[in-house]
Amino acid sequence: MKLAMVGPAGQELPAVLDADGRLRDLSLVIGRVDQVFTDRGALERIARELAEGSLPAVEGSPRIGAPLRPGKILCIGLNYGDHAAETGADIPTEPILFMKAPDTVVGPTDDVLIPRGSRKTDWEVELAVVIGREARYLGADDDPMSYVAGYTVSNDVSERAFQKERGGQFDKGKNAETFCPMGPYFVTADEVPDPQNLRLTTDVNGVRRQDGTTADMIFGVAELVRYLSEFVVLRPGDVLNTGTPAGVAAGQPDPKPFLRPGDVMELSIEGLGTQRSVLRQG
Amino acid sequence: MKLAMVGPAGQELPAVLDADGRLRDLSLVIGRVDQVFTDRGALERIARELAEGSLPAVEGSPRIGAPLRPGKILCIGLNYGDHAAETGADIPTEPILFMKAPDTVVGPTDDVLIPRGSRKTDWEVELAVVIGREARYLGADDDPMSYVAGYTVSNDVSERAFQKERGGQFDKGKNAETFCPMGPYFVTADEVPDPQNLRLTTDVNGVRRQDGTTADMIFGVAELVRYLSEFVVLRPGDVLNTGTPAGVAAGQPDPKPFLRPGDVMELSIEGLGTQRSVLRQG
Repeated sequence: MKLAMVGPAGQELPAVLDADGRLRDLSLVIGRVDQVFTDRGALERIARELAEGSLPAVEGSPRIGAPLRPGKILCIGLNYGDHAAETGADIPTEPILFMKAPDTVVGPTDDVLIPRGSRKTDWEVELAVVIGREARYLGADDDPMSYVAGYTVSNDVSERAFQKERGGQFDKGKNAETFCPMGPYFVTADEVPDPQNLRLTTDVNGVRRQDGTTADMIFGVAELVRYLSEFVVLRPGDVLNTGTPAGVAAGQPDPKPFLRPGDVMELSIEGLGTQRSVLRQG
Repeated sequence: MKLAMVGPAGQELPAVLDADGRLRDLSLVIGRVDQVFTDRGALERIARELAEGSLPAVEGSPRIGAPLRPGKILCIGLNYGDHAAETGADIPTEPILFMKAPDTVVGPTDDVLIPRGSRKTDWEVELAVVIGREARYLGADDDPMSYVAGYTVSNDVSERAFQKERGGQFDKGKNAETFCPMGPYFVTADEVPDPQNLRLTTDVNGVRRQDGTTADMIFGVAELVRYLSEFVVLRPGDVLNTGTPAGVAAGQPDPKPFLRPGDVMELSIEGLGTQRSVLRQG
């Protein structure tokens, strides 16, 4: 299923895409999409209501917000070899972990704000993995994929000078307001039979900048879930941004096309949907 | 005022220390201590009830939990010159930012878990600053201290190998379960006339390991609040861990006294109270 939160910011209601690609109102079934992580019967109830065709259609063309409010957002750096190469970094020998605060999340069509003083705001399309069950110290006998509830599209917006030239820890360039557009849908794992075979693209002002495949991840989804469970507790609703392929602004020849007010980013992942964000001065 | 959350984990109720150092029940006044960040009249109501002497005493000696559930925890690395020196790092020229996830927070007497596979679990007593008002891009005309609601004690528990030898971003060694004991009290800013003149200490198994003063911070509280507001939005209830003075295990001669199951950490900050945590294998 593809679940969404639709409506004005702060007043979103849950919805689900039906077989015809129409949004159906779920507000009599669940309160928020996140509820599926705490309410064990919620997904079954939604599937049943959807099959029965009894859910009312969502009227008009409302804004789509972020489908989830993650408890935490774990991000993997340099997880595609071509992206590591374009930034001049070595191929990592184990996953690089940094974090985005949950309050950086905005919807997939909301404006993205360029921080004041920024000269190097950049895009990063990423497969976002949504955790469904608490995971601690997963071992060889555990199936990491059984801890994955589903997927969504994430834009790991980054300010490269803040990230690399202002103290060295990535977090400083990853946590400005609006720096994590997410959505449009929370897509349940059953709809994504192979998360390591998804094309992911970014167009900026109509120019294709990123065109990769999750097949090129250095550390795949299963390995990341197992690995991270050694260092943090993964909890239902937590999100894992799995890294970006080549084609970011920082990887282009000079003058690098860092984002400016009015620019338009369009990010897509096969089967998960498309984001369209307009840049604005923060 | 000194506000606390008291009771079994997950069932804490709000309380306030009276003039005699007794905990008084606030559960008829507020739901949680965090409520003071959204409910403008809450602190005044608490002060009035406290002055009237009408609040019932908390019975017995219940557990004290973490006073707050922060939205995000921003941490400053190497913010005391003697600590930077003991770790072999250069004195930072601007604040180093990393993050702890909110779900690492536990109470000031709860067990701290040593991660499986850890060899280098370490302590860090830190003055924690609690944000009271939303702060964005504070300028020369803004008073950063007017955005500070109060203070508490934080232990920025760290696994040094995970932090420094496993990919290079600090977050990997800062986010294990229970890695942020916080409390005992949220102390309102009016009770801390000079946050840059507080003694802070750590004893481990009765041996004094850290004995510093916030006067030695490289970047003081006001400067940190202003600086961070350039990179992230500071929101009410967010916590800022301001760094630790010298005396961590990693800074001792070999064999370094990294934490082991059964060890006891006691952390104090002048005027803010004391934590006592027992180490246990995770």
